[in-house]
Amino acid sequence: MKVAIVGATGAVGREMKALLAERGFPVDELRLLASARSVGAQVDGLTVQEATPEAFEDIDLALFSASSDVARELAPAARDRGALVIDNSSAFRADPACPLVVPEINAETLDAQNGIVANPNCSTILLAMALAPLRKLAAIRRVIVCSYQAVSGAGAAAIDELRSQEAAEAAGNSPVADVFPAVIAHNVMPWVGDFGADGYSVEETKIRDELRRILEQPDLPVAATCVRVPVWRAHAEAIHVELDQPVDPASAADAFRHAPGIVLHEKDFPTPRDAAGKDPVHIGRIRADRAFDPGLALWCVMDQLRKGAALNAIQIAESVLGVAARAS
Amino acid sequence: MKVAIVGATGAVGREMKALLAERGFPVDELRLLASARSVGAQVDGLTVQEATPEAFEDIDLALFSASSDVARELAPAARDRGALVIDNSSAFRADPACPLVVPEINAETLDAQNGIVANPNCSTILLAMALAPLRKLAAIRRVIVCSYQAVSGAGAAAIDELRSQEAAEAAGNSPVADVFPAVIAHNVMPWVGDFGADGYSVEETKIRDELRRILEQPDLPVAATCVRVPVWRAHAEAIHVELDQPVDPASAADAFRHAPGIVLHEKDFPTPRDAAGKDPVHIGRIRADRAFDPGLALWCVMDQLRKGAALNAIQIAESVLGVAARAS
Repeated sequence: MKVAIVGATGAVGREMKALLAERGFPVDELRLLASARSVGAQVDGLTVQEATPEAFEDIDLALFSASSDVARELAPAARDRGALVIDNSSAFRADPACPLVVPEINAETLDAQNGIVANPNCSTILLAMALAPLRKLAAIRRVIVCSYQAVSGAGAAAIDELRSQEAAEAAGNSPVADVFPAVIAHNVMPWVGDFGADGYSVEETKIRDELRRILEQPDLPVAATCVRVPVWRAHAEAIHVELDQPVDPASAADAFRHAPGIVLHEKDFPTPRDAAGKDPVHIGRIRADRAFDPGLALWCVMDQLRKGAALNAIQIAESVLGVAARAS
Repeated sequence: MKVAIVGATGAVGREMKALLAERGFPVDELRLLASARSVGAQVDGLTVQEATPEAFEDIDLALFSASSDVARELAPAARDRGALVIDNSSAFRADPACPLVVPEINAETLDAQNGIVANPNCSTILLAMALAPLRKLAAIRRVIVCSYQAVSGAGAAAIDELRSQEAAEAAGNSPVADVFPAVIAHNVMPWVGDFGADGYSVEETKIRDELRRILEQPDLPVAATCVRVPVWRAHAEAIHVELDQPVDPASAADAFRHAPGIVLHEKDFPTPRDAAGKDPVHIGRIRADRAFDPGLALWCVMDQLRKGAALNAIQIAESVLGVAARAS
């Protein structure tokens, strides 16, 4: 197959490239595309080309990890040239013509795909992966989630900013914020995207809207507080969920134990360091919720560049194209 | 007045000493007490003495910042010698004979004090300070809170651990965990004290039990997820609260604007760095809750060594002893 990666020089684009190889995806030709700024850059011996409509000629699979604007402009161009597009931006996530997919949860919606499939927001994928196995035991009535999100979710510049702020502090200087609206070194900030008129950040609203669509519960109440933390890689979420009937923590643990893509922590608790660089969603601290009755509280962690972005996109491609992943 | 500080060499003990001076507390004699291990240490020219029952002779005010075991042994001894004891441990927090006090909220319970007053857990103080002003607008029905707690809450050894782990990483070595059960550098962990049989940590249960007592709502449902983050100083909490009637965010903001001890952030959001070393509780991001209807979501931050421990204790002492704090 001829595969294009749009945004090939970014963190998610690099993960996409690595995962194609890791999973034995049948790649005959790999075309790395990016904005004009990155054209000519070398990635493992491949030269980055400019992402133009014509760059998608003959492409079978186009993995997009670029801005919504780029996706809106180029994804239809790629699709019209015969490529299956998996888009990691928010451009098509609310478009009824484009399925919004986490393969472990709603792969069946891919049957109706029309050339462009939307990859959900990373925080949504984590939340959906943690909630979906519970639906076999009870219906989900309400969700409150607080996130602990790694800086790499904001790109390479954010990683550099944390590093340089820590270096400044270590040298006795004042750290300076540029990428984020406040210093992130030895700090946390409840800001993951700008705030809307209702006070919720972009990320908090994405989580609600996308979760509703993935779970096919268009009225599900979902309140999120999204917080950036000085972690390099892997997001965590504290989830409090109201169910329509009691589910004891042992039964929930059993459901997670048998759920694909999930590693259950029964004796210990997972942290971002445990999940970084790994594929599964890690779940632990399952307990009866003290405020939602009946309900459960749990803690989950996931590498947001892998299952939260690149891995999920490639799983979607494998599902649509009938490609079996190599056992890892 | 003759004042003793028990645990004078610890982080909270040092804050107590500093705050007595800052606030112009009428100290005629200051006696610094600690365990045998610290005896002889010098703190600003004062020699630390051993905390024994006899060390409280003639003491008017004894500020305890030691373990629960030490408090159980020595607080009655101090009280029996005529001292007012303000204890920062959990030893007396559930004791009906000892008021559990946040002066801005329930100073009136000090009328019934019997020589020992309990200072609440830091995370409880933050949560109670954020919820109390709302009670003038509506009754509190349910609370879900997720915390972002600084390492200094776990003592000087935890601060050293974060620092040495970061140094190890910077040098290309693997960081080693000792104080905490996982590496805290560039990580977060949902562990603030051991887990009980129901899966909740010590801190999560303290928050529920102490909040119920302070708000005099013994059946209030309170679900917490407490998480340690790599921040030096100041705790943050994301609070989702169900109310018995709608309160619009502007009305809530107005209540906070006029509440003592609170700084309201209307345009921006507060972070731990903003609160570190300062007295007030900082509140922001007030919005209609999307899961609790009616309800509110908010974000709050507080220096857990100041208002979360030493300041609250001294405010209690000022209230009982009729001492006016110097305007700062």
